[in-house]
Amino acid sequence: MSIHVMKFGGTSVANLSRIKNVVQIVENKIYRHSERIILVVSAMSGVTNKLVEEYKRINKDISTPEYDAIVSTGEQCSSALISSMLNEKKISSRSILGWQLPILTDSNHSKARILQIDTRSFKKYLEDYKVLVVAGFQGVSKQNRITTLGRGGSDTSAVAIACSMGLDSCEIYTDVEGIFTSDPRVVKDANKINSITYEEILELASLGSKVLHPRSVELAMKYGIRIHVRSSFEKKIGTMVIKEESKIEREIVTGITSSEKDAKITLKGIPDKPGIAAKIFSILARNNINVDMIVQNITDDGKFASLTFTVPEDDEKKAVKEIKNSNIKFKNIHSNSSICKISIVGVGMRSNVGVAQKMFETLADMNINIQVISTSEIKISVLIDLPNKKKALNALHDAYKLSK
Amino acid sequence: MSIHVMKFGGTSVANLSRIKNVVQIVENKIYRHSERIILVVSAMSGVTNKLVEEYKRINKDISTPEYDAIVSTGEQCSSALISSMLNEKKISSRSILGWQLPILTDSNHSKARILQIDTRSFKKYLEDYKVLVVAGFQGVSKQNRITTLGRGGSDTSAVAIACSMGLDSCEIYTDVEGIFTSDPRVVKDANKINSITYEEILELASLGSKVLHPRSVELAMKYGIRIHVRSSFEKKIGTMVIKEESKIEREIVTGITSSEKDAKITLKGIPDKPGIAAKIFSILARNNINVDMIVQNITDDGKFASLTFTVPEDDEKKAVKEIKNSNIKFKNIHSNSSICKISIVGVGMRSNVGVAQKMFETLADMNINIQVISTSEIKISVLIDLPNKKKALNALHDAYKLSK
Repeated sequence: MSIHVMKFGGTSVANLSRIKNVVQIVENKIYRHSERIILVVSAMSGVTNKLVEEYKRINKDISTPEYDAIVSTGEQCSSALISSMLNEKKISSRSILGWQLPILTDSNHSKARILQIDTRSFKKYLEDYKVLVVAGFQGVSKQNRITTLGRGGSDTSAVAIACSMGLDSCEIYTDVEGIFTSDPRVVKDANKINSITYEEILELASLGSKVLHPRSVELAMKYGIRIHVRSSFEKKIGTMVIKEESKIEREIVTGITSSEKDAKITLKGIPDKPGIAAKIFSILARNNINVDMIVQNITDDGKFASLTFTVPEDDEKKAVKEIKNSNIKFKNIHSNSSICKISIVGVGMRSNVGVAQKMFETLADMNINIQVISTSEIKISVLIDLPNKKKALNALHDAYKLSK
Repeated sequence: MSIHVMKFGGTSVANLSRIKNVVQIVENKIYRHSERIILVVSAMSGVTNKLVEEYKRINKDISTPEYDAIVSTGEQCSSALISSMLNEKKISSRSILGWQLPILTDSNHSKARILQIDTRSFKKYLEDYKVLVVAGFQGVSKQNRITTLGRGGSDTSAVAIACSMGLDSCEIYTDVEGIFTSDPRVVKDANKINSITYEEILELASLGSKVLHPRSVELAMKYGIRIHVRSSFEKKIGTMVIKEESKIEREIVTGITSSEKDAKITLKGIPDKPGIAAKIFSILARNNINVDMIVQNITDDGKFASLTFTVPEDDEKKAVKEIKNSNIKFKNIHSNSSICKISIVGVGMRSNVGVAQKMFETLADMNINIQVISTSEIKISVLIDLPNKKKALNALHDAYKLSK
């Protein structure tokens, strides 16, 4: 008995005709291989948002068991609907909820982590049913309460199930052909990437590219699970997420991404004394504000410094207010959310010089001013004015020869 | 520690302001008595219908575990929302789903019966929380799958919990003041009934009056639980459902009800031989068609009989077709769904003569033709033409002095 794990996202199960399409894909798979399938499904698209909204009208705190009881119903419904449809097509199937298997998690409600998956149950059920339709995104705590894994958590459910069942791969079906070199809505020449490493995709996810739930990639990396991200609407090979050693094509830059969710805050005229920056960032940390890019300059006279950093756009006002209310001395504070972070990602950067230089030159040629720079081993990010986003993405896409 | 069981129906939890109202009622109860409360809640009104509709687009058979997994989410959400609101008001609370307690049922999906309620869990939770918000209508089977008790089943959840906790009463909050002598939308002078017996309310329920889930009344009768049906919007005493011995006011007729959900089928010219009626009804039974009222006449010459009976309106066409397709001999068949069943109910009938006579006289005085009659110990039903419904209900309401 060979077992496949296939995950379908919200848009892939959005309505009756799309559920039929999922059933068709499952049917083909069974027909070809006479295998058993563990289907992991998200809620029908839009459902979770509605549930969250309903809950938030009563309580803003989502880290409660009641929040999870509510939002988990989206997957409870979609898994039961899909299983019903499979049974209608005479494919023996049952739905499985987090508590039924169980999928044991810690009790960090709304962002729980999977602790253990009962694979004996899976094996027992696979003797009785050809397809198990697992409600993604959810589990159960030791306290016997429903938990959820955070938005996009169904990816993690799928990878965790593949890991625990000792499989070496897992398919993630979505509404796009795979992972692209850049956002095809902005960069016309964007190409599907054939293979990408775990590290690269983690950088892309942290940079705002909505592709896979980061936890799912971490898990896949830890256990060496290949993830095949592919379209549920087209019968094409998608993007394989693999370890670096397995990657044959070694482009220097794999993808270019952008994020508009940050705001830039600049403080000028800070006394240039040790510990000032630490003080500012500890105020922000205390208020749960995440700081991303940071640049510090010293003015000509050496007495004052200026500090620029980015925070999530939603926290912009709060950050400015907290700093103004503190006893930190500065001459003026300025914030701006009409900015955009452009990042190039690629494991090839490790062994190639001149990657950053090309980025800066390309942007300079386009007369685009770089405001802040930050780098990691496989990524370079720059902050630019928002109106330059499209121009910058396209120019860089060409410069690194990512176009078709 | 004294414990109250309070059940709130779908209209009582239909939206945010109504949920606030429920919380207010609970708050008052706790404030006055410093007691523990087990709140049983239905889904927000309209939600269950939507879920049923969604399921039925895929599968018409509702007796599946997947149906129950889907429809049970309505109560899963409402119980968690109400518990969140209670916690917001600093009233310690948690939601409880059928499988969490557990409320063990048989595995007759979509119409399961409660087998056992874990009262030890209840007692343990009541040490930690002032209010437990139980998702009504649902339980869990021995196979660890979600079950539901049938539409209106939250009443049964509430009464069963009161029984198992050894309580002697239970409050059912709804959108009306209590149970009425007749439908106030049709009979202007309809009055709230102060007390009604289990038997009477069971007759009313079987006659089409939507008041309490019949199973809940059966359970209450068996265990001697008083049910207080009252409004969640007005602070008034409602209707007490009690055993006959406790009833002080003994009207002859307690209530008058009507139902439009039947169709009348008449077969003329049937050979008057033994076993013909049995044959007809066995055909209908085989097709899952429920026959209610039955009248058989013999024609003057004694050779032929005519047979009239009622079936649910939805089964009218099917019944006629099955009879036509059978080898039963008859001259002609006629069906009519523009009819109405009017019933008077009251335990006082047992010890009073002339109750039926008054009913027939009253209708005769109004020139309303009675087509079929059926009686039980505490009920008389007659079939009349639908257009006469309002006239008949009002005349009978006056005749039995039920008006204010």
